[in-house]
Amino acid sequence: MAVSNIRYGAGVTKEVGMDLQNMGAKNVCLMTDKNLSQLPPVQIVMDSLSKNGISFQVYDDVRVEPTDGSFMDAIEFAKKGAFDAYVAVGGGSTMDTCKAANLYASSPHSEFLDYVNAPIGKGKPVTVPLKPLIAVPTTSGTGSETTGVAIFDYEHLKVKTGIASRAIKPTLGLVDPLHTLHMPCQVVANSGFDVLCHALESYTAIPYSMRSPCPSNPIQRPAYQGSNPISDIWAVHALQIVAKYLKRAVRNPDDLEARSKMHLASAFAGIGFGNAGVHLCHGMSYPISGLVKTYKAKEYNVDHPLVPHGLSVVLTSPAVFTFTAQMFPERHLETAGILGANIRTARIQDAGLVLADALRKFLFDLNVDDGLAALGYSKDDIPSLVKGTLPQERVTKLAPRAQSEEDLSALFEASMKLY
Amino acid sequence: MAVSNIRYGAGVTKEVGMDLQNMGAKNVCLMTDKNLSQLPPVQIVMDSLSKNGISFQVYDDVRVEPTDGSFMDAIEFAKKGAFDAYVAVGGGSTMDTCKAANLYASSPHSEFLDYVNAPIGKGKPVTVPLKPLIAVPTTSGTGSETTGVAIFDYEHLKVKTGIASRAIKPTLGLVDPLHTLHMPCQVVANSGFDVLCHALESYTAIPYSMRSPCPSNPIQRPAYQGSNPISDIWAVHALQIVAKYLKRAVRNPDDLEARSKMHLASAFAGIGFGNAGVHLCHGMSYPISGLVKTYKAKEYNVDHPLVPHGLSVVLTSPAVFTFTAQMFPERHLETAGILGANIRTARIQDAGLVLADALRKFLFDLNVDDGLAALGYSKDDIPSLVKGTLPQERVTKLAPRAQSEEDLSALFEASMKLY
Ligand SMILES: NC(=O)c1ccc[n+]([C@@H]2O[C@H](COP(=O)([O-])OP(=O)(O)OC[C@H]3O[C@@H](n4cnc5c(N)ncnc54)[C@H](O)[C@@H]3O)[C@@H](O)[C@H]2O)c1
Ligand SMILES: NC(=O)c1ccc[n+]([C@@H]2O[C@H](COP(=O)([O-])OP(=O)(O)OC[C@H]3O[C@@H](n4cnc5c(N)ncnc54)[C@H](O)[C@@H]3O)[C@@H](O)[C@H]2O)c1
Ligand SMILES: [Fe+2]
Ligand SMILES: [Fe+2]
Repeated sequence: MAVSNIRYGAGVTKEVGMDLQNMGAKNVCLMTDKNLSQLPPVQIVMDSLSKNGISFQVYDDVRVEPTDGSFMDAIEFAKKGAFDAYVAVGGGSTMDTCKAANLYASSPHSEFLDYVNAPIGKGKPVTVPLKPLIAVPTTSGTGSETTGVAIFDYEHLKVKTGIASRAIKPTLGLVDPLHTLHMPCQVVANSGFDVLCHALESYTAIPYSMRSPCPSNPIQRPAYQGSNPISDIWAVHALQIVAKYLKRAVRNPDDLEARSKMHLASAFAGIGFGNAGVHLCHGMSYPISGLVKTYKAKEYNVDHPLVPHGLSVVLTSPAVFTFTAQMFPERHLETAGILGANIRTARIQDAGLVLADALRKFLFDLNVDDGLAALGYSKDDIPSLVKGTLPQERVTKLAPRAQSEEDLSALFEASMKLY
Repeated sequence: MAVSNIRYGAGVTKEVGMDLQNMGAKNVCLMTDKNLSQLPPVQIVMDSLSKNGISFQVYDDVRVEPTDGSFMDAIEFAKKGAFDAYVAVGGGSTMDTCKAANLYASSPHSEFLDYVNAPIGKGKPVTVPLKPLIAVPTTSGTGSETTGVAIFDYEHLKVKTGIASRAIKPTLGLVDPLHTLHMPCQVVANSGFDVLCHALESYTAIPYSMRSPCPSNPIQRPAYQGSNPISDIWAVHALQIVAKYLKRAVRNPDDLEARSKMHLASAFAGIGFGNAGVHLCHGMSYPISGLVKTYKAKEYNVDHPLVPHGLSVVLTSPAVFTFTAQMFPERHLETAGILGANIRTARIQDAGLVLADALRKFLFDLNVDDGLAALGYSKDDIPSLVKGTLPQERVTKLAPRAQSEEDLSALFEASMKLY
């Protein structure tokens, strides 16, 4: 269970210039995306850098839901700039892009696939020293400010994968709830679903003591260790916040209390899943995003088809937890209770169904699209969706129940329509 | 808010040799005390070091409840050994001694008082790089494996003080519940009270947003920041474990479940108070320990008079929380509920009394000495006890209510007899 260094509070972003000065930075790379570059969070960071006499260059070409191509572009920028520190201001797309840029600029002779998760990449351990990276999240979802993970869409395979190494974990996360006030409601909802699934999946992942293989040398153990008593605390707490505040945060942009709580929950769930891991909803989401056809998420303000990450994970959640509840039904029932289900009279053998119902109700109340069909998928897509899930075993093997290809097909099929 | 790096599990200690090898260590200092040097935890560490071909020297002269003199002796040993890594196997006394040895051996030109907390010492910030330190706790109390704090008794002032810097936080804590099976029941009880007070004090400390002064540069902010939404989670969770398992852990040495839970609770509370801070019970405990007369704690197996740290903090807790409950009465009542008090019908203005009653009942059930009088203190000692508390403002100013000298006198007086 490892270190994540975060500072929380309204206004902490203003301190970023001092933090960088304390780190001895003189030539900083500020990464963001085109929407955010026009908004206060980026302005505040630029002001703080200037005020502290720190030179910086802005890279605002981050792609929302990044690809290998967009990562590569950011890496080129980083290599040319010879920066001594990085600041990422944005959602998971920005923070992940910045982690990759820092990694490959610090390891200039590596091939791109060297550090990408096996079996798609070579999954080499990172041994080079990286530059300090300060992450300033502006969504409340990925928890990327606390994790050693960077996710991208590997375009020619049409599947998402990533880089996972403690080495790319941000040096510091500045969790400033004021930034959440600018977030469009749809981004609040979808990134909130990401928190929901991080919490549910890490809490129901196989326990760390059951994960196999367990390399005898600690350095070879994966970042995702399985659920454990520490990640459990983060997961349950994040889930309680989601249950209490997500709807309010989505519906009312001015509800600073609700939006602040969700901003913290995102970091909490990140610390939890960053150590425990996620499983099926995430494993199955990667082809759902990767194979996107024409779906364009509302309020995302981008020029390419896009299934937002949080939506792609949550749509399979009712099917997934119905399937996994055979193992650890108590935990499934407990989380259903946290989400508002009446579990006093529920039978333990119905745990999966009770949780699925609670999830469907939660999604329905938030007007979420009615399943994968609403995103343009049909039965004909199931074989490719399954094929895209198979290489995700880094996460899928953390599920409490093993899955055959038939199981995966059935899960996608059950997720076509929710209500 | 920095989370600490810990690995939890039965048997993780066996991995210490590999961890040190991964860190590149070749010449290791193993610190422990004379009791532990005869017990399995130290043997397991030595075996693991040998098996991994790592040279080491053992220092087993750690003093239980260390002093400046005993710190100095360990520092001399460390300086001579020119070690490239440290392993501390023991309770807070051992871990704290090892932190000090690492610090001063890494900063050979510093005077001892340079890094000691002001106003007793100079409280200089640590800027030298330290060697890796792996902490293996064998008590379930201090959480020192997670904190940047080292406490000692400053003998000629007869008062405890310490060194507090993120720089001395262990690189890794190996939290191995198997070690707790060797702990004498009195050590389980007293170190458990330390956990209880870490949790209660950090949860009721002034909120981080109310602490003053708040230096504008983050690097100058103290390690103890006041209570915050993250430390709150650790505190509440640790308290729940104490309420559920401490009595079992004390009463039955073979109750591995209860002792394991307390071992985790100690680390949890450490992460909480290591960021939030403690306040009055701890501030007042330092003269209680420092002024010890003839009291010899049962089962501590040492040749000097000794008030164990956990006992010295818990005896004032009923008086302290009666006094502080004016501020944040909800939190005081909530913790009383966790400790088993019936709070449904309690009035909020009685929060302090309800918590004090819950604490007295808890201590009575565990046969704890009846107040400071039972330790040999009388009214005549109160002026010196107050005088020894005044320089502890690093912690006492985190109390939710300011204290005059008269207040402190009254608190010591009210703690003379508990039942
Ligand atoms: N690294 C990890 O641990 C991790 C975990 C989960 C997901 N992810 C990845 O993160 C990405 C998703 O990130 P995300 O959900 O945070 O969203 P995002 O970064 O993709 O941003 C979504 C949209 O919201 C806009 N936006 C963000 N913050 C805003 C604000 N405060 N005001 C106005 N507009 C704002 C962006 O410009 C963009 O249009 C995916 O690629 C996903 O796979 C990473
Ligand atoms: N650094 C911090 O954050 C922090 C916090 C609280 C307290 N402290 C300090 O820690 C010290 C107290 O430490 P402690 O309460 O852990 O106890 P300790 O280290 O003083 O040990 C107490 C006794 O128990 C014995 N012992 C320890 N583990 C044993 C085991 N597994 N089997 C058999 N015997 C065992 C020791 O030999 C000793 O006799 C005090 O000096 C206190 O001020 C430090
Ligand atoms: Fe996610
Ligand atoms: Fe303590």
